[in-house]
Parts: sequence; C-alpha cells; structure tokens
Amino acid sequence: MEIDIQLIPVPLNPVTLSERMVIVMDVLRATSVIVQAFSEGATEIIPVKTVEEAFEKAKAFPEGTTLLGGERNSRKIQGFDLGNSPKEYCSERIRGKRIILTTTNGTRAFYLVSSGKEVLVGSFFNLRAIARYCLSRDEDLLIFASGDEGRFSLEDVVCGGMLIEKIAEEGGSVRLTDAAFASRILYERFKRNPLEAFYASHHGRDLVKKGFEEDLLFCARSDISEVIPIFRQGAIRLHRE
Amino acid sequence: MEIDIQLIPVPLNPVTLSERMVIVMDVLRATSVIVQAFSEGATEIIPVKTVEEAFEKAKAFPEGTTLLGGERNSRKIQGFDLGNSPKEYCSERIRGKRIILTTTNGTRAFYLVSSGKEVLVGSFFNLRAIARYCLSRDEDLLIFASGDEGRFSLEDVVCGGMLIEKIAEEGGSVRLTDAAFASRILYERFKRNPLEAFYASHHGRDLVKKGFEEDLLFCARSDISEVIPIFRQGAIRLHRE
Repeated sequence: MEIDIQLIPVPLNPVTLSERMVIVMDVLRATSVIVQAFSEGATEIIPVKTVEEAFEKAKAFPEGTTLLGGERNSRKIQGFDLGNSPKEYCSERIRGKRIILTTTNGTRAFYLVSSGKEVLVGSFFNLRAIARYCLSRDEDLLIFASGDEGRFSLEDVVCGGMLIEKIAEEGGSVRLTDAAFASRILYERFKRNPLEAFYASHHGRDLVKKGFEEDLLFCARSDISEVIPIFRQGAIRLHRE
Repeated sequence: MEIDIQLIPVPLNPVTLSERMVIVMDVLRATSVIVQAFSEGATEIIPVKTVEEAFEKAKAFPEGTTLLGGERNSRKIQGFDLGNSPKEYCSERIRGKRIILTTTNGTRAFYLVSSGKEVLVGSFFNLRAIARYCLSRDEDLLIFASGDEGRFSLEDVVCGGMLIEKIAEEGGSVRLTDAAFASRILYERFKRNPLEAFYASHHGRDLVKKGFEEDLLFCARSDISEVIPIFRQGAIRLHRE
C-alpha cells in the first residue's frame, strides 16, 4: 500500500480521496476525545462545524440521550455538557450517550475528507488497532493531520509517523510519499518520548498556558484502546467485526 | 525574527505574505539553476509559467541578448537553448545574457509568493549568503518549498532546515513555527550528507531514472556562491550592496 500524509489541512481532490482510506489525526485533542469517548461507552459522535449547529442538532434527539461537547479557544463552550479534555469523557458521564462535538480543528477535518473511501479516527490511544485495521483492508492510505487553525501541527504529524511505523512493524509492505517519509523521521526524533512533541508544538504550549497541561500527559499514552471509530454520513460510529 | 516554512505549494494570504521576506526553494533544480546562472554571469532571469509565454517574451528583446531555458517532464523543451541542469548554465554560454526560464514547480512558485516583502532565491549553493542577508534585514521569514507538482518535496524542506540552522549559527535569534521546527529536524537527519535527501526524495529518484543523476551531485554542494537573486516585478536580478 502507498501511505501519504496531508501535512496542512487544505481541501483535497475528491477523486484522489475516494481512492484512499483516510485516518484523521487531531491528537490535541479532538480525535483523542473521540477515541476515549468510544472506549468509555459512547454510542455515536456527531462532529459539527459550529456551536449553533450543535444546539440545533441536539433538539432532534430525545431528551437525556445526547450530550454537547467541544471547545472554542480551547475552553468549554457555554451551555455545553463537556469541554475538549478527554478525561472528562468517562464512563459515568457518557456511557450509552450520543455526543455532538464541535472543535476548532478536528471536527472541521472530517468534512474536508468526507469523500474518502473510509474515514477513520486516530490518536495515540488506538494506533495499533488502526494499523491492524488498515492492514486488513490493504488500501492506499492518507493520514490527515488536522493542524492548528489551518497550519501544520507537529503533534499530529508525529502521531502519523508512529502509525506508519506500527503498520511496518505489523508486517505491512508500504511505499511512502516524501511527506509520509518525513513524518516517519519526525516520529523517530520523538520516539523515546512522544510527550516531548506536545511540549515542542505551538498548540501544546498554548494548552499548557491555558491550564490544560494534564491533557498533554493524558493524550500521549499509546495503544490503550482497541476502538476503530469510523466517520460516515455525518456521524462517527464504532466499527464492529 | 519568526521563521515559518510553507511545506506545500498552495496559494497564501497576500496580507501575511506582505509582512514577510520570502525565500523560494526549488533545489531540484530551478533555484539551483538560477543561483548558478547568476554566479556565472547572467544579467537577468525572467521566470514564466508557460512555454508559449517564454517564446512570446523572447521576441521583446534584441536578438542575441536572450536565452530560453527550462524543462517539461524534467527534459529540455524543444526550441529552447538550455534545459534545467545547472551545469549547462556555464559562463561560456550565458555571461551577459538574459534568461527566460520556465519549469514545472520553481517558476510557478515565484508567482505564488510575489506579494512578499522581498522574494529571494535560495538553493544549497548560496545558503550562507542568504542567511546573512536575512539577518541584515531582520524581517520575519517565510521559506517557500516549491514542491513536486503540488506535493511536499523532501529536498526543498531539508534545504529550508539548513537555512534555519545557518541563520542560528550566524547569531540570529529566531522563533520557529511548528513547520520550521520540523524542517530543522528533517535537516538534522540529513546533515552529514544532504545528497541522501535527494536520493530519498520522489523527485530525486525520478531525476536519476531520467538520466540526471549528475544534477543531484551538482545541486547538493553548499555555500559555493555568494549571490542574492531577488524576484521583483516579474524578473529576478542580483542584489547589489
């Protein structure tokens, strides 16, 4: 399989996308939140672009079934149930619930890649599971780094490099584009401690400044979950064998 | 100064550009050709987007003053005087001449960044000179990697990382964006032998396949020229103190 990585979150050619399986990465913090929420028992996550859309969408569902989560400027949104810290998404609060999620970078990314052959959600939490799933499908891959307000973000690309390494470790025969090769080099640099990439990144440092340092430690743990969330027709649901 | 690098050649915000000095990199091979041509005595280089435009433009100048150079699919264009191998641009052929140049990635890049505060031409050949010039100006910098038919190209970004290192070595106090930080890590990986980055890159391997391996060796030599070519109003000319 060929593996490519989109280093900057810009719109892509829908034809190219339709020939590839896409893995969306926004490790600080939207895709970490999504993987964590499914690991703790959420039933469905609906990513939406705006706060208004989140409130509007929630009305369509029976009371008590749905929670609102997400951030603006990294902070919880007024009137929402949950912010964008993965640790808030614990079983006691979210088991059996649907979550409507809106964040600055991650939720937008899903709409940029919606014409992908399949659209998976990746974070450090579930990379091994994602790697195995990709190998079982044997399609060309595009890792989509959600970035930082339209710019390159180091942490998503390092996570992409780790996914490539895991696919190779699992015995995948991979051809890398220059971008994918570069992401693997970047991962190598932070291999001993991926948390360092968070502290080196603009977005990571900004989260520390805003009081979310604990989220960096939380999101840097790899292979603690086996969930494969898949985005399809506006909603993210768990892949089931 | 802040240093950023554009990892993918997409159109940029003209306002952001107008606040930055831009350094265009297309080391395989357009910006290497440009630096080489000025080092060997060319008077002016006019980058144009199409072959037709090149022939058209040439008519405006007195006979014998102007040469046509460039490539399509890496090869010399029919009816042109020169291809896109820097070694062709030797003093015997080009001293005192104007060159109209059209290439796949590099010449297009100049028009994508034309609203930059200043637009410089960089390659491994003249990085130290460019670093010193940037330090003397003390403006925020955007390194523009011309890429490979719209995609990320490893060699331009490694060259960008080397420029950042040279600026730091010369005593510059720099703040790096995530992208610039990543380019420095990529440069570190190939520091002992930048030629390896050429052989690892998609475009480099394609040039080898097409018989241009000698160009890789030629273009990997650093700090062999002191020229500072500047693109302004459609033409590249030498900066003179």
